[in-house]
Amino acid sequence: MKLRRSERMVVISNYLINNPYILTSLNTFAEKYEAAKSSISEDISIIKKAFEEAGIGHIDTVTGASGGVIFTPGIAEAEARAIVEELCSSLSESDRILPGGYIYLTDLLSTPSILQNVGRIIANAFCGEKIDAVMTVATKGVPLANAVANVLNVPFVIVRRDLKITEGSTVSVNYVSGSSDRIEKMFLSKRSLKPNSRVLIVDDFLKGGGTITGMTSLLNEFDSTLVGVAVFADNTQETRESFAYKSLLSVSEIDVKNNKVTVEVGNIFDA
Amino acid sequence: MKLRRSERMVVISNYLINNPYILTSLNTFAEKYEAAKSSISEDISIIKKAFEEAGIGHIDTVTGASGGVIFTPGIAEAEARAIVEELCSSLSESDRILPGGYIYLTDLLSTPSILQNVGRIIANAFCGEKIDAVMTVATKGVPLANAVANVLNVPFVIVRRDLKITEGSTVSVNYVSGSSDRIEKMFLSKRSLKPNSRVLIVDDFLKGGGTITGMTSLLNEFDSTLVGVAVFADNTQETRESFAYKSLLSVSEIDVKNNKVTVEVGNIFDA
Repeated sequence: MKLRRSERMVVISNYLINNPYILTSLNTFAEKYEAAKSSISEDISIIKKAFEEAGIGHIDTVTGASGGVIFTPGIAEAEARAIVEELCSSLSESDRILPGGYIYLTDLLSTPSILQNVGRIIANAFCGEKIDAVMTVATKGVPLANAVANVLNVPFVIVRRDLKITEGSTVSVNYVSGSSDRIEKMFLSKRSLKPNSRVLIVDDFLKGGGTITGMTSLLNEFDSTLVGVAVFADNTQETRESFAYKSLLSVSEIDVKNNKVTVEVGNIFDA
Repeated sequence: MKLRRSERMVVISNYLINNPYILTSLNTFAEKYEAAKSSISEDISIIKKAFEEAGIGHIDTVTGASGGVIFTPGIAEAEARAIVEELCSSLSESDRILPGGYIYLTDLLSTPSILQNVGRIIANAFCGEKIDAVMTVATKGVPLANAVANVLNVPFVIVRRDLKITEGSTVSVNYVSGSSDRIEKMFLSKRSLKPNSRVLIVDDFLKGGGTITGMTSLLNEFDSTLVGVAVFADNTQETRESFAYKSLLSVSEIDVKNNKVTVEVGNIFDA
């Protein structure tokens, strides 16, 4: 496919965005778009500059025979803060309080544009870390883990609270369920996580912390390492377990009587 | 932010890709990148040509005072067929058969690059249809529905087989579970789907068809309309319900004894 330079740049930048963290040689582009390697190299330097100026991410060049370019998605801090502040005000809407002091998050976590932005922010908070997989627990955490995994371009792993026959052999651990204070079981399919993986745990809402502690013990069973924990929102008043985590939003008060939620920006931007 | 033309084109094409199906006025770009509207218009026509040549999608221009451009993601049929044929051979691997004649799909449906491609293919199969939401059933269908919803830029709706307290009030229907032949219940949170929505149902694997029939009756309860049904794979031998659907892959035989699965391209490319 022979394209004009300007068209080629559009197509190459689209390719890089859809293939983050993957090394692509300049020859691949040169052959695909029937252009000299030197022209592709110039295209890349323009794309690199545009990506950096617009906060889309950065492009690294690896030199040598097996070299090429790698795109790492990013997000400008100002853009990230603006997104989180808007989520803060969405979460503060009074009609989100459900019986039992829970907060309705489903609408936010099922809107692609919000998920994509949240995925970019969480992935960016762990940039520089080697991550092989994103882990979450069914069902609420799945779209969020999916969004983070999309940006990191790694698989996601879904831990289950019930045993499905279509998963094959599983490993299970016990954990203390925050909502009921009971000992429950969680399950992970043996095939779904390779041993010695470096794993980022992602969840929608952190209350007691029991679920995340459970996932951490599952990681031990798979000889894997915890890189970090990221949650969409936390309610630190109720957190009994102690572990480091990053949150986009922090719920400091749920006043069921007056139907009022107090939400602040979480610790994700803390240095 | 003032950018050179070539940089501006990279940034505008990135914006369009991340905001499909949304009308954006040329003035928005003109103001954001401090350029004349006529220059933006030229940029768009170059991007349009590149998107079409590379099968990324097409850009429509709406004229008039409230006009602008709308990007609709697409996929070239040759690319789509190559992706589905590769999935065919992945699914034919013998070690996918689980006890009970089930097939292990989790690895494919938790890999972002595969999900994104499958999302593009399914969304493209319903192009021209007005779709307000994508519906699926927890847990396996969620990543797939999420991927299709990303491309269509609409919310996705998750039907549950159990009742979670954090969902608020729900509507439930009965359905015949294909795996157990029993009458089961499925639930959908009242707030998660607006009445009069046009809905695309997406699921990972179609066997008996009871789950999809159940979701269709839920749509009636929400005064909503079924636009279509799309599944990742079907096993038509076992389908008892009759409804129109599109499948990427079709499993014609699961030979547990010889550990062999026969998989063909589904009906998604049929006219």
